[in-house]
Amino acid sequence: MPIAIPDSHMRLLTDPVLAHLATVMPDGRPQVHPVWCDYDGTYLRVNAADDRQKSRNMEKRMWATVLLVDPYSPYFWLEIRGRVVTYTTTGGMDHMHLMAAKYTGENTYTPIRENEVRVIYAIEPDRVLAFGSDPEVSP
Amino acid sequence: MPIAIPDSHMRLLTDPVLAHLATVMPDGRPQVHPVWCDYDGTYLRVNAADDRQKSRNMEKRMWATVLLVDPYSPYFWLEIRGRVVTYTTTGGMDHMHLMAAKYTGENTYTPIRENEVRVIYAIEPDRVLAFGSDPEVSP
Repeated sequence: MPIAIPDSHMRLLTDPVLAHLATVMPDGRPQVHPVWCDYDGTYLRVNAADDRQKSRNMEKRMWATVLLVDPYSPYFWLEIRGRVVTYTTTGGMDHMHLMAAKYTGENTYTPIRENEVRVIYAIEPDRVLAFGSDPEVSP
Repeated sequence: MPIAIPDSHMRLLTDPVLAHLATVMPDGRPQVHPVWCDYDGTYLRVNAADDRQKSRNMEKRMWATVLLVDPYSPYFWLEIRGRVVTYTTTGGMDHMHLMAAKYTGENTYTPIRENEVRVIYAIEPDRVLAFGSDPEVSP
């Protein structure tokens, strides 16, 4: 069963907070790169070009961990650890347009390269650490 | 031999940019938490309380990866992968005071808990990915 995200920290997933995605390299060490992400109520979704190392890592070794830190307070953050349960190119570019709207305010994502193929990775949270309290909410 | 940090991205280590530290859990999945860090010219240093999971991870499994992203541009970042080559409590609290000066402008770090023991972890970079160009430098 996926673990739910606590309401107290949901803002970190709905605001345009850059995610830090850790995946596992072939030799077992972590890779950490910035990514856009969203949350469909059950799964955390990240989107990557199909030829990236992070993509290979998620396809071959299911572990994925995402850290989201409030840009205005390093003491309000959310770490989600989980496994990649599905990945697909279907709708991958449309999903990037949605994420562009979330992160840039533009309705269109402009691919960095020609013929870029985007993949949606769905991560099922199985361990959630919600740290601190929201500085935007009065106690 | 430690890999050098390119001058183009050194600012991400000297400015108060929050670091995202990935370590390896006992089951092989990554943990990613925000930390303060500095760089002594050869080693990247992070500082953690001795009873934290990230500390156990670094002591038992040497891999450590740090991501630093410019808070003003998600397209200017530095990933450093390496191994923890030494760790010590000697000077651990003094090092936190130095990091407080870097990150908060205060000369003193106030421990979160009584009798907190701080450990300095020295990470030898063996793979550095310097992404993008500094938005603060004119082309």
